[in-house]
Formats: sequence, C-alpha cells, structure tokens
Amino acid sequence: MFGCSASAQVKTSRETKGQYLSANMAFSVGVMSAMYLCKGVSGAHLNPAVTLSFCSLGRVPWVKLLPYALCQVLGAYLASGLVFLVYYDAIMDFSGGNLTVYGANETASIFATYPVEHLSLSSSILDQVVATAMLMLCILPLDDQKNSPAPDALIPPIVAVVVLGIGMSMSSNCGGAINPARDLGPRLLTLTAGWGTEVFTCYNYWFWVPIMAPLLGGMVGSGMYLVFIAWHLPDLPTNPPIDSSSTKPTTEVWKQPPAPVKEGVELKTAIF
Amino acid sequence: MFGCSASAQVKTSRETKGQYLSANMAFSVGVMSAMYLCKGVSGAHLNPAVTLSFCSLGRVPWVKLLPYALCQVLGAYLASGLVFLVYYDAIMDFSGGNLTVYGANETASIFATYPVEHLSLSSSILDQVVATAMLMLCILPLDDQKNSPAPDALIPPIVAVVVLGIGMSMSSNCGGAINPARDLGPRLLTLTAGWGTEVFTCYNYWFWVPIMAPLLGGMVGSGMYLVFIAWHLPDLPTNPPIDSSSTKPTTEVWKQPPAPVKEGVELKTAIF
Amino acid sequence: MFGCSASAQVKTSRETKGQYLSANMAFSVGVMSAMYLCKGVSGAHLNPAVTLSFCSLGRVPWVKLLPYALCQVLGAYLASGLVFLVYYDAIMDFSGGNLTVYGANETASIFATYPVEHLSLSSSILDQVVATAMLMLCILPLDDQKNSPAPDALIPPIVAVVVLGIGMSMSSNCGGAINPARDLGPRLLTLTAGWGTEVFTCYNYWFWVPIMAPLLGGMVGSGMYLVFIAWHLPDLPTNPPIDSSSTKPTTEVWKQPPAPVKEGVELKTAIF
Amino acid sequence: MFGCSASAQVKTSRETKGQYLSANMAFSVGVMSAMYLCKGVSGAHLNPAVTLSFCSLGRVPWVKLLPYALCQVLGAYLASGLVFLVYYDAIMDFSGGNLTVYGANETASIFATYPVEHLSLSSSILDQVVATAMLMLCILPLDDQKNSPAPDALIPPIVAVVVLGIGMSMSSNCGGAINPARDLGPRLLTLTAGWGTEVFTCYNYWFWVPIMAPLLGGMVGSGMYLVFIAWHLPDLPTNPPIDSSSTKPTTEVWKQPPAPVKEGVELKTAIF
Repeated sequence: MFGCSASAQVKTSRETKGQYLSANMAFSVGVMSAMYLCKGVSGAHLNPAVTLSFCSLGRVPWVKLLPYALCQVLGAYLASGLVFLVYYDAIMDFSGGNLTVYGANETASIFATYPVEHLSLSSSILDQVVATAMLMLCILPLDDQKNSPAPDALIPPIVAVVVLGIGMSMSSNCGGAINPARDLGPRLLTLTAGWGTEVFTCYNYWFWVPIMAPLLGGMVGSGMYLVFIAWHLPDLPTNPPIDSSSTKPTTEVWKQPPAPVKEGVELKTAIF
Repeated sequence: MFGCSASAQVKTSRETKGQYLSANMAFSVGVMSAMYLCKGVSGAHLNPAVTLSFCSLGRVPWVKLLPYALCQVLGAYLASGLVFLVYYDAIMDFSGGNLTVYGANETASIFATYPVEHLSLSSSILDQVVATAMLMLCILPLDDQKNSPAPDALIPPIVAVVVLGIGMSMSSNCGGAINPARDLGPRLLTLTAGWGTEVFTCYNYWFWVPIMAPLLGGMVGSGMYLVFIAWHLPDLPTNPPIDSSSTKPTTEVWKQPPAPVKEGVELKTAIF
Repeated sequence: MFGCSASAQVKTSRETKGQYLSANMAFSVGVMSAMYLCKGVSGAHLNPAVTLSFCSLGRVPWVKLLPYALCQVLGAYLASGLVFLVYYDAIMDFSGGNLTVYGANETASIFATYPVEHLSLSSSILDQVVATAMLMLCILPLDDQKNSPAPDALIPPIVAVVVLGIGMSMSSNCGGAINPARDLGPRLLTLTAGWGTEVFTCYNYWFWVPIMAPLLGGMVGSGMYLVFIAWHLPDLPTNPPIDSSSTKPTTEVWKQPPAPVKEGVELKTAIF
Repeated sequence: MFGCSASAQVKTSRETKGQYLSANMAFSVGVMSAMYLCKGVSGAHLNPAVTLSFCSLGRVPWVKLLPYALCQVLGAYLASGLVFLVYYDAIMDFSGGNLTVYGANETASIFATYPVEHLSLSSSILDQVVATAMLMLCILPLDDQKNSPAPDALIPPIVAVVVLGIGMSMSSNCGGAINPARDLGPRLLTLTAGWGTEVFTCYNYWFWVPIMAPLLGGMVGSGMYLVFIAWHLPDLPTNPPIDSSSTKPTTEVWKQPPAPVKEGVELKTAIF
C-alpha cells in the first residue's frame, strides 16, 4: 500500500509550466495510472472520501478505513516530497528562494489547495461537498452490474475523465481537492519543507475544509445514488439462468466456467 | 428521474474560469457521466430533442414525451440552481452584484445561451437545426445493430466526444444549446435568481429558438438517418443462425444463453 | 453514399472561433462520427487517397474508385455549402463582406487549405506525401488481423485520434489536407460562393498539390506498410485449430458459430 | 525493424506551430500509432529504456538489447531527418538560416531535449529517473494478468495517455525525453544537419543525461513495481480450472480453444 500510493500519487500533486488545463489533465492521467497500478494489490484506494463512502455502503470493512486513510496521506506526502525535489530548482528560481502562501510569487498552491480571495467559508464547503458528491455519483454506476456498467478493464480511464471533468468545472473556487489525502499530504510537505505554519493558518485556518467537506460530500453522493438510482434499478436475473430442462453435460459447459470469472470481476471492482 | 437529471445535469450548465474549450469538455464529460448514471433507471433521457426523435422513430412511447421533457427542464433548473449557489461568490465578485444580460460583465450566458450581435434570426435557427440534426446523425448509428455499432458499454464516452465536437464547432453563433432542457431550465433559473425578465425578452424574444430549433433539428436528423442510411443497410441475419443439422443438445448451448443477453442489450440501448 | 458523405463531412470543413487546436479536434470528431455513420452502407469511404490505396491493395475494386471519389468531392461541396450558410453572418461580419484569399481578413482558408508564404512547392508536396503516408501507416495496422489489431468497434475513435495527431503536427505548412475531397470540394464551394477564381489561381495554381500529393502519399504509405510490416508478419493460424481427435458434436459447437462472426468482422473492416 | 521505427518515430521528434500542449499530444499519438504498427513485427520496442527494463525482467533476451537500441536510434535519426526536410522552409524562415542551440531563435530544441537555464545537473538526472520510473510503473500493470490489466487491444491508446501525462508534467525541466533513442537520434541529426557540435557540448556536455538517466529510471521503476506491486499480487488460478469430474468431451470444449488464445495474448503483450 505504501509504495503503491507513493509512486502512484506522485502525479496527483503536481502543477508544471503550461496551461491550467494541463494540470487538470495530468491529475486525471495520474488517477488512471494509479488505478491500473494498485487495483490488484489494494483495490486502488486513493481517496479517503471514496473509501469512507465504500465503508458506509458496506463494500469495505470499517476497520480498514483508518489504515487506508493514513497510508493515502503518507503516500501523498512522499509523492509531493519527490515532486518538491524534482522541481526544487524551478521553485527556487520562480520564488526567488522565498517560499510563501500569499502573493504573486507564491508557490504553496503547487502542492495543496487554497481558496480564492472572494470566497466565503460556506461557499467553499458547499463547493467541495458538491464536487465530491458528483464524483461519487459519477463513479458508482460504472461498476454497478444492475445499472449499465462500463467495461471493467476500462474503468480507470473513465474515472480519469470524470476527474478531469470535475477539475475543469469545480476547481476555480478553491482548487478542487475532492480528496483529503491529496490535500493534507502535500500540505504537510509544505509545512516541513520551508513554507512554515502559514500553510495551515492562512485564510483563517481554512485547511480543514478540503479534509472534512469531501468526506461529507462522498457520503451525500453515495446516499443520493442509493435513493435516486440504485433503489430504482431492477434486480439482476440470477445469472446464468439455470435451465433445468437441458441435458446435464451441456449445461455444465455454461454454468461452471463463467461463474468464477464473474465473481472475480465483481470482487475486484467492488473496491476500486 | 428527478434526482437523476438534477444531479447529472449539474455539469451541463456551467462555465468556469479557464478556456472556452474547457467548458465544451466539461459539458461533454457531464453527458457521459449522466448517461452512465441514468441508463439503468430511465434510459438516459437528457435531451427533449432526442426523446422527441426517439418517439417519432417508435423507440419511446409518445405518452412519455411530456413527462420526460418536464423532468429534464426541472432537472436542469435544479442543477443550475446548485451551480448558482456554488458560484454565488464568484458571480457576485465578477459582476459587482449587478446581474445583467448585456455588457462586458454579463453573467447570464453562464447559464442559458444567447446569440452573438451580428446573427440574424434565420441563421440562428439554421444553426440549431443543423447542430441537432448532426447530433442525431452521430448518435443513431452507435447502437444500430445493422450498421457498425460501437460497444454498448462505451456508448456514453463516444456520445460525449460527439457532443464535444458539436460544442467546438457549432457553439460560436448562439451557444450551441442543441438541448431545449439544457437551455430553458437554466434560463428559468436566471429569471428567478435575479437577472429578471430580460433573459426572455432580450434579442427580441430570442429564447424560443434554442427550444424549438433543436426539436426540429432532431426530427430532421432522424429522418435523414432513415432515408440515407438505415433504409440502405442489409437486414441482420437472424442471429444465431439456426443450424438444424447439428445435434440438439449442443445447439441449445449456443442458442439459448446468448439470446436474453442480446435482447437485454437492445432494450437498454434502444432508449439512451 | 451522397447523403452519407454530405451529412458526415459537414464537420470536416469547418473552422470556428476558438483555438487552432479546436479545429483539429472538431475535424477529428467528424471523422469518427462519419465512420460510425457510413461503415454499414458504404464502408466509410471518406478520402479518395485512402480509397485509391485500398484499390491498389486489392481491398476495393478499381471500378468503384471514380464514383466514390466524385461522391466524396460532392459530399464535401454540399457540406461546406451548409457550413457557409450556417456561418454566413459570421463570415460577412468578419470579412466586412469582402471575400478574399489573401490578407488579414481572408476567409478562404475556412474552407480549403493554402500554404504559408515561405513554403516552396517541393516542400508542400513532400509535406502532403509524408502526412498521407503516415495516415495510411497508422490506419492499416488497425484492422490487420495478422498484426495486433484494435477492437473493430473502436476503430473509428482510434482513427480519429490519428487524424488529430496528423492535424496537430502536419498542418502548419499547408493546412494538412491529406484528403483530396476535403480540399477540392470546399474549394469549389468558395469558387461558386463569391471568392472567385483566385482560390484556384493563388500561390501559382497551388490547388493541385492537396489533390495529387495525398493520392501519391497514400500509395507510398501502403507500399511501406506492405514492405516493412505486412510481409514480416507471421501467418495467422487457421482459426480455430481443427482438433480432429475430439468428438464431433462438441467440436461443432466451437467451430461453426464463431466462423461467420469472424468473417463478418473482416469483411466489414476490410473497407473502412 | 528499421522501417518500423523510422516510419513510426517520425512523430516522436516533432514540435510544430501551436501550443506546448499540442506537441505533447502529437508525441503521444505517435506512440499509440507506432505501437499498433510494430507490435506484430517487433513487439513495439520504441524505447531503449523500456527494452532494458524488459531484459532485466526476463521478458526479452539480453542479446536483443543492443541491436534493438541501435535500430531505435537509427529510426529516430531517419525520422527526424524526414521532419527536417518537411519543415526545412519553416525552420529556415524562423531562424533566418542560422541554426543555433542558444538564443531566442534557437531551433535545436525542435529535435533533441535541452535543460532550462536554472537547472542543476543533479536535478535534471533526478527528473529523468523519476519520469522514466513513472513510465515503467504506469505501463507494467497494463498487461500484468495478475493485476487488473487493460484490454490488450487498447493498450496502445492507454500507453499514449500515460506518455501524454508525463509530457504534461515532467517536460518543463529538461524536455522530458524519457527515451534515449528519441533524444540521441534527433541530436545526431542536428549534428549532421548544420547545428554543429554545440548540440553535444552545450550545457557542459549535458547530452548524456537523457541517455543514461532514462535507462536507470526504467530499472528503478521496474524494481519498484516488482517490490511494491508484483510480489503482493495473488497467483493467478490455473485458468481454466481443470474440472476432472465433468465429462470428457464438454471439458475439452472449454479447455482447449481458449488456451492458445491466452498464450498468444501473453506472448504478444509481453514485449510491447
């Protein structure tokens, strides 16, 4: 889990030269690659808000929540540390060696998210709740066999597109964290790497918003999916339909080999 | 259906900071996610123009047209209301608190579509008819088993790409609504949220164009698909070919299990 | 074929407000949609250079070359005529009513391609030959069962990405036509719609380059694919391997139903 | 292999007019097309760093490393030569005929990569090691049947997205070569085409970094994948599970035809 999150989330905390759109796209590619990378080992838990939602949906045992979340934050911390090393020269050149949170040459927003000046506290909370709820509403149907699921092996790029969409539309207010680990890990990095305590105290201790609001938003989104979608979906036919009239040997041909495959698919995707 | 459209179309009415292209892409991602979200419950009816076309093609009963359309408008209204709340601070900061339709600080076009100054009425009608006809021509072949269909589970991202293409090429004249609900719902929101009646009266009561023209365009596109494409396609072979010479038990193996799958696919995709 | 090309190529000749990249992307989406639309009827022949290459490879009978090419040009002409109507107001507003080929307010390049000032004739020929050869090298492996083919139902979006790549990298010299019909049709439209004979005479009668060079480039690319790739591919195993030792009825189960599917796939994709 | 790399890598060394993002995207499309093109013949070896990693993982025999690497460099050299010819007029026009490595009108960076001014040697090495390690970490799971692999026929576009992501996030320091052949081949071209020995001597003989660092980074990434991911993956069930209790003929139906397919898939993808 360590190395997994670490190596994977390298991508999730970077912002290079280029357009605003590039950063959104790189973030999204990182999500895709991290999902392909970690699905086999840990089920691609990259986001505490998603893990919490899956716990509440009964797909992940509650006891795993805290260790997963800690690993996610640690992974993001290590990853952003690596980004800091790789871009050390560039950051020093840009900021003139003065690592700050405010001002034209601020570099803190490379790592963690910060709100824009005119944003009220309630708006920034609403922004993160809505964005994370949308994330859950967009990814929950993808592997719901009762809905119209996406191909299992292509879920990572589709989730990446969803993340890109949210990044393009919900990141202008306060950076669009939608992931407590993606925000807290890099913020801790900046705390220890020279930006000082201002990364936590700035904007009137705003740092708790991208931690708590996504957790709440994930629950809201999952609840909405249950109430408005999942409860209205017809039950799956027990698949394959047991046809008792057919001859034994041929039925066996269909019933038995697909069964383990099916189960494997559901188990694996249940916890992406 | 309510919650579905509401939560899904959140995306369809936003325009954040960033490039013109970003808005097109976010719109397109919203269409993809909404389709995955709603296909299982309602068949992913998001656009009254598409629903009307499907009614006229006999794929959706006429009696469902009005309730679907009303839900679509209501969903778009609620979704744009949520967008208004999330971006309330940003809109107030941008407009100086003065919500207008005309001028450099206008914010009405965040929600509904408006024509550019030099556009004649007939051109704007033609624009919307052509754009919506193209939409129908591009999505109808995707699930036509007689044509060369796309993979069923990947139709949402492909439709999203089509919507992106239309957004990039047909939105400069008058905003590229191609969806009466996507335009009317947010326009009603602006009416009630402080922009006043000008959102309907401006440009000489232009608001009816993005409502009626897409409906007409959808019919035109569906008709063209029938006349130029569908009627020229060879009939599907009755699938699977019944091979009367083979032994009973083995034929059963092939004939019976795929059949329900096939039917399920067609039923589900018939009304996306 | 008429309506097919006409409606499909609507997209291939437009350039709206927005970025240079948007035009490339819209062109590419148009190719994808046109392929889905027309594959069932005509095999998605959209480009005379590709059709010529397929004739020389023996995949399309030579007698179909000329009618296909004429329809492609006619389709592009009609499509660009529609674009002209939709954007009539915008073009008039931009150009001040003065439709020209040269100058800052020129609008001819909306439809056909023109070289940049510093480009020599031989360079523009080389540019189009290389670009079209690359197009053939990129699309020929996609349905070559001996190579590592792409999924048949996803070939249209992959070809679209290829076209986008060529558009992003080979269109700065002389517009990146790589398709005689896409260039000649809209050029004829501008001839008849008010730009005058200058669209053919300008740059020393340059118009023949985007017609002849892509045809040559397509042949070059196909030849290179044969020589460097196809001849080195191992033969396909006769699929499925006939296992003479197994019992008759069960073998039949595997051998006979997949066979027609396989053949159908190859037939359909043979002429995209 | 020659023609393969040559024709394929045409794309990998270009930078045309347009945005920074366009170049990244064109590079990425080139990788996708090259993989589809060459997978059947040579296994799509385009990058010596990847080939070296695969040798060390035991997927490619060591004896093939040097010939493959030489062909890759030669292919990149020929490809960039073709780009030089196609863009000869444009390069001469841009540079005023003065081909240089430094200055506002420099054109050397069209072909090879160069570091930015403020970059220390160690940072540039770290940058390339990290970027190439990320490349390996992102592509190794894609065909790992024990992990959650991507669809075999869609690996090329997914690798292309990974390359795009790295290009968008890791190319601002020193150009993001992540491929010794992609850098050395075009650099040799500029040496022989008029830029002179400065392309090797500049920045204190920096040219060896994009050769050696990606080789090292590929090994690091492969090692990390082994240690943190592959060793933690559950063993694949011997597929299909031999069910000794079922009747002979029907078991044969399932066991024997899928077997060769499976093997073929693994063999082919083992060396992309």
